[in-house]
Amino acid sequence: MTNSISNGRPGEFELIRNFFAPLSGNIAGAFGLTDDVAVLTAPEGHDIVVKTDAIVEGVHFHRSDPPGTIAKKALRVNISDFAAKGARPGAWLLALALPDWPDTSWFERFVRGLAEDQEVFAVALAGGDTVRTSGMLTIVVTMTGFVPDGAVIRRAGAAAGDIVYVTGTIGDAGGGFDLIQASARRHTAWQEELISRYLIPRPRLAFGQALRGLASAALDVSDGLIADLGHLADVSRVRVEIAAESIPLSPALRQLYGDDLASIMRAATAGDDYEIAFTAPPAKSSAIAKAALQTKTDVTAVGRVVAGAGAVMLDAQGREVTFIHKGYTHF
Amino acid sequence: MTNSISNGRPGEFELIRNFFAPLSGNIAGAFGLTDDVAVLTAPEGHDIVVKTDAIVEGVHFHRSDPPGTIAKKALRVNISDFAAKGARPGAWLLALALPDWPDTSWFERFVRGLAEDQEVFAVALAGGDTVRTSGMLTIVVTMTGFVPDGAVIRRAGAAAGDIVYVTGTIGDAGGGFDLIQASARRHTAWQEELISRYLIPRPRLAFGQALRGLASAALDVSDGLIADLGHLADVSRVRVEIAAESIPLSPALRQLYGDDLASIMRAATAGDDYEIAFTAPPAKSSAIAKAALQTKTDVTAVGRVVAGAGAVMLDAQGREVTFIHKGYTHF
Repeated sequence: MTNSISNGRPGEFELIRNFFAPLSGNIAGAFGLTDDVAVLTAPEGHDIVVKTDAIVEGVHFHRSDPPGTIAKKALRVNISDFAAKGARPGAWLLALALPDWPDTSWFERFVRGLAEDQEVFAVALAGGDTVRTSGMLTIVVTMTGFVPDGAVIRRAGAAAGDIVYVTGTIGDAGGGFDLIQASARRHTAWQEELISRYLIPRPRLAFGQALRGLASAALDVSDGLIADLGHLADVSRVRVEIAAESIPLSPALRQLYGDDLASIMRAATAGDDYEIAFTAPPAKSSAIAKAALQTKTDVTAVGRVVAGAGAVMLDAQGREVTFIHKGYTHF
Repeated sequence: MTNSISNGRPGEFELIRNFFAPLSGNIAGAFGLTDDVAVLTAPEGHDIVVKTDAIVEGVHFHRSDPPGTIAKKALRVNISDFAAKGARPGAWLLALALPDWPDTSWFERFVRGLAEDQEVFAVALAGGDTVRTSGMLTIVVTMTGFVPDGAVIRRAGAAAGDIVYVTGTIGDAGGGFDLIQASARRHTAWQEELISRYLIPRPRLAFGQALRGLASAALDVSDGLIADLGHLADVSRVRVEIAAESIPLSPALRQLYGDDLASIMRAATAGDDYEIAFTAPPAKSSAIAKAALQTKTDVTAVGRVVAGAGAVMLDAQGREVTFIHKGYTHF
């Protein structure tokens, strides 16, 4: 119940009409963002998948980050969950709590980032809410999408005897974060690669959909590999054992940290990887290799599922590695 | 990528397990809030309806408001949209950006408020995200639900010749807001009633669903009656003319403001009514009266739809009333 305040940034209706409505182009039930709700139709034989994710200035991004990068991070952390669940994202909603500082130029770049990612991931804006705040810029993306009936890949489902896999390389985003924290100076190419992994997650959407019917359980790695496999183990009521030396580290990360056990531990407890960690019975291994090849995705077997509880890392001698903390949280 | 901080409030996992998971009871696809996404199934012959709404400390509520009241406001401003669209709300997602100050007792009362409203409106929590903020407490509710295929009541659809209606009384929440702003002293019963209208909206869910097939266009009144009818007129490409003396004012509001034209103008430009404003052809008027009776909803005809543009209020002599501003915005 506060008056609209004009201060060199677009007003709410201008924001919707000029900036956000064009992002809703191909969804009939978005009504060009002129109505109160969005209306979607599930394809025959599909369940609806929904997920909400918040990112906050000062916690998940900095005010000085390029607005397009912030936009992409907001979308991609959410799309990454769809990837790990074997689901296809589609229509999304945007809730923005806006402080005074984002100006027209900021919105232009923010929306350009959203538009670029809408192309990449074939998603479209279906609605949202824009409110004022005297606090931090807060961006909440709610993604909706679909998955064939019963085909969602859950955290529950891992069974003793399954192999544990992870896509891509682990720890890169954490390395990029460390580099940003350490210095604002210009970075080398391999450093830029790590920083880019932190700033702009790369959801494994195609591979995740190929995992339907293959993976017994999956999730995306956001809190850190060991922490997230711990969540999977808890819900599946099994124990996950990871071999430290099998965890895939990028050449860039090896250059930053080295490749001793301490470096692997650091990688396996860093957050923001947005790779898929999953389990599957050994009988599926050739089908998984084929899916990896077809979607040009690196996939590494990193451990196994056994009876018991928790997720642990074993060193080269098979001894359990002790962590002070197993992961990061954005909370 | 920040460490979990323990400070007398529940940690993220404790919050989910002890406070939020119990709210997900009756939705299979919420997986007890142990997975990354929620999976929902649309009933045969139904479209999916989605809507996101943000409320922010210092803008939509105060830190000192009872936590259960904040909880109910967050849910109800969203459910109100479902009411106006003829849709049935079901599974919802909660994104919380949390500063340091909410403690365990606050969460207990917040969750109790959510639980009470889940009973009232037959909705259940299906997922969410909890993040830290150094700014204002921000609560984003994304509601999902269903509507029979093609039956959603849009803002577009009003046609010249239609009658304009509104449920309940207008301006009460604005009066309650004025009372809160004016003084913190104890209030009389009629003042409390107005304040309650501001603090806890009362979505017209049953009547909204009864309007399917009757209303040609509808929306909930949140920015102020004239402003919101202006939105409806814009999207429907018609002109809405409201008779000032027909706008329903409660006895409590008349006691606060009086009932002259200035008071009516004040009521018609106050926000947060969360009543349904709708249009319908004259042929539907007896069916509307019946729906009102069956759902125990007061419904008042307040004007008509004509060719043209915009929403205007006419005085008793049929002259257009001039407003400085036609409504409030939370932006």
